[in-house]
Amino acid sequence: MSNRPEGAAVQQDVPALSFPPGIAYMDGAFVPISEAKISVLDWGLLRSDATYDVVHVWQGRFFRLDKHLDRFLSSVGKLRMTLPLERDALARVLAGCVTRSGMENAYVEMICTRGVSPTFSRDPRDAINRFIAFAIPFGWIADEEQRRRGLDVAIARDVERISPRSVDPTVKNYHWLDLVAGLFEAYERKAENVMLTDGAGNVTEGPGFNIFALTGGRVITPDIGVLEGITRGAAIDLCAELAMPVDIAPLPVATLKAAEEVFITSTAGGIMPVTRIDAAAVADGKPGAFTARLAELYWAKHQDPTWSTAVEDLLA
Amino acid sequence: MSNRPEGAAVQQDVPALSFPPGIAYMDGAFVPISEAKISVLDWGLLRSDATYDVVHVWQGRFFRLDKHLDRFLSSVGKLRMTLPLERDALARVLAGCVTRSGMENAYVEMICTRGVSPTFSRDPRDAINRFIAFAIPFGWIADEEQRRRGLDVAIARDVERISPRSVDPTVKNYHWLDLVAGLFEAYERKAENVMLTDGAGNVTEGPGFNIFALTGGRVITPDIGVLEGITRGAAIDLCAELAMPVDIAPLPVATLKAAEEVFITSTAGGIMPVTRIDAAAVADGKPGAFTARLAELYWAKHQDPTWSTAVEDLLA
Repeated sequence: MSNRPEGAAVQQDVPALSFPPGIAYMDGAFVPISEAKISVLDWGLLRSDATYDVVHVWQGRFFRLDKHLDRFLSSVGKLRMTLPLERDALARVLAGCVTRSGMENAYVEMICTRGVSPTFSRDPRDAINRFIAFAIPFGWIADEEQRRRGLDVAIARDVERISPRSVDPTVKNYHWLDLVAGLFEAYERKAENVMLTDGAGNVTEGPGFNIFALTGGRVITPDIGVLEGITRGAAIDLCAELAMPVDIAPLPVATLKAAEEVFITSTAGGIMPVTRIDAAAVADGKPGAFTARLAELYWAKHQDPTWSTAVEDLLA
Repeated sequence: MSNRPEGAAVQQDVPALSFPPGIAYMDGAFVPISEAKISVLDWGLLRSDATYDVVHVWQGRFFRLDKHLDRFLSSVGKLRMTLPLERDALARVLAGCVTRSGMENAYVEMICTRGVSPTFSRDPRDAINRFIAFAIPFGWIADEEQRRRGLDVAIARDVERISPRSVDPTVKNYHWLDLVAGLFEAYERKAENVMLTDGAGNVTEGPGFNIFALTGGRVITPDIGVLEGITRGAAIDLCAELAMPVDIAPLPVATLKAAEEVFITSTAGGIMPVTRIDAAAVADGKPGAFTARLAELYWAKHQDPTWSTAVEDLLA
């Protein structure tokens, strides 16, 4: 028997992989996104021992880049990893991915994985941490029609969000099997997306988004067991500009369903209305006026230099 | 500004990556392990939306291969993924990795990830599932000295195991950030490994192993919130051969600490004694006679054709 790895012993149809356009940075160089690959021995895959952040670029400007960098560097530190570059260099890498991609609107992800241990030692301290970044086209959690009429979501019954006692949700992480199971449950129930509870009657978050309810002249968004989303923070700041009180507090499912307006927040789409929950209309079933006003203000801030940074300014 | 991804905009020291020896299979071909890479856009990385199994080869024979294949195929189905090959072909791929690696003792992993969606759609149904397998040298959770004198473990105080209400532990998965946090906590407390609880006073499992206690003439191993380990199953079967009763039941921390013998089970090392927990000796602090007998029987079964399969027989 040959020791050389040649040829296939087994017939397998290999689908031609295709990728969105985009540019990645890894190992000190920019490469097409289709060439950006990590070893199957990276603990980022084999233990999901990784953290990440996603910032978006809109019309050539990063939105709240400093807040994303703050959170990413905090997450890397909490996982006891080290990055191979400093904050300023990191920002230039992100900008480099965007300019090389030629995109005006982009979804820009930075990742730090535990990396590979040369001996496959099981001790995470032996691994060489790995940094990767990439820019791909801006993507939306809700498509254009959904943003116009509002999303139809289910509240998962069969699965609950991973507890903050197990995984610190302030470290942005890839532990999504609960969210993916919730998505499949929602699709079976003919909904478009899913919200997970904490198992004690409160909603937490959905796949890639935070949840808000407008009720009794106040806005409520969950306090624990959720990612401290940058868009969540933007929505809270914009509520303050509009003199709308915000409670960061438990959000019972019953309160959510009885709310006047419900919306979600995500880097992947900003502030988006939810108009159906568990096959029942939220209020009159139409996107609410406050949600619309908040979304309008959110997009207007993308040209405001206190909220955004021109990509080219980072490379000057 | 050029759109072409050439050169580095940023100085970064790039460590020379080195890998253990080994052979991987992906996309219909066998490749050196150093070349086995997945796209950074694979949901197996970006959502840890993946399942896997690890079977070992000892002296040229797979141990309980059928049980590993059963579990892997079950996990793939539960995640609603599809493999590009049938069970028999899968077994031949695993054998092919081993023979091409030239290893007599190997750690053989098979992985199915959600894969890449060509449009980066957030709907998991749009992704093309990906299968990967590899063989690398056999690895041990406990090194030779630890196996001789017994492991010194801590019971994590700061983190608890992800609940089965969030992630189905019978689907072998990479959601390990809780286990990794536990490892760092154990290292700080000068222990060598960690066990996590369910947050209600019972131990569950550790990073890659199940837990057993011998107490009052019976063996106890936790019932819920744990992987149904193949080595756990082997230990249960071997207890039956030795007429030792086994309770698959909650295992309180207090019961564990007061046990006559404690051992762990893993494909990565078989049946291994634990002699210190939270800096206190288990019984007299020496590996127990029953654990030793069980481990001896476990290794003897590796030549028994009802428990093992010659690698070459799969390629005949």
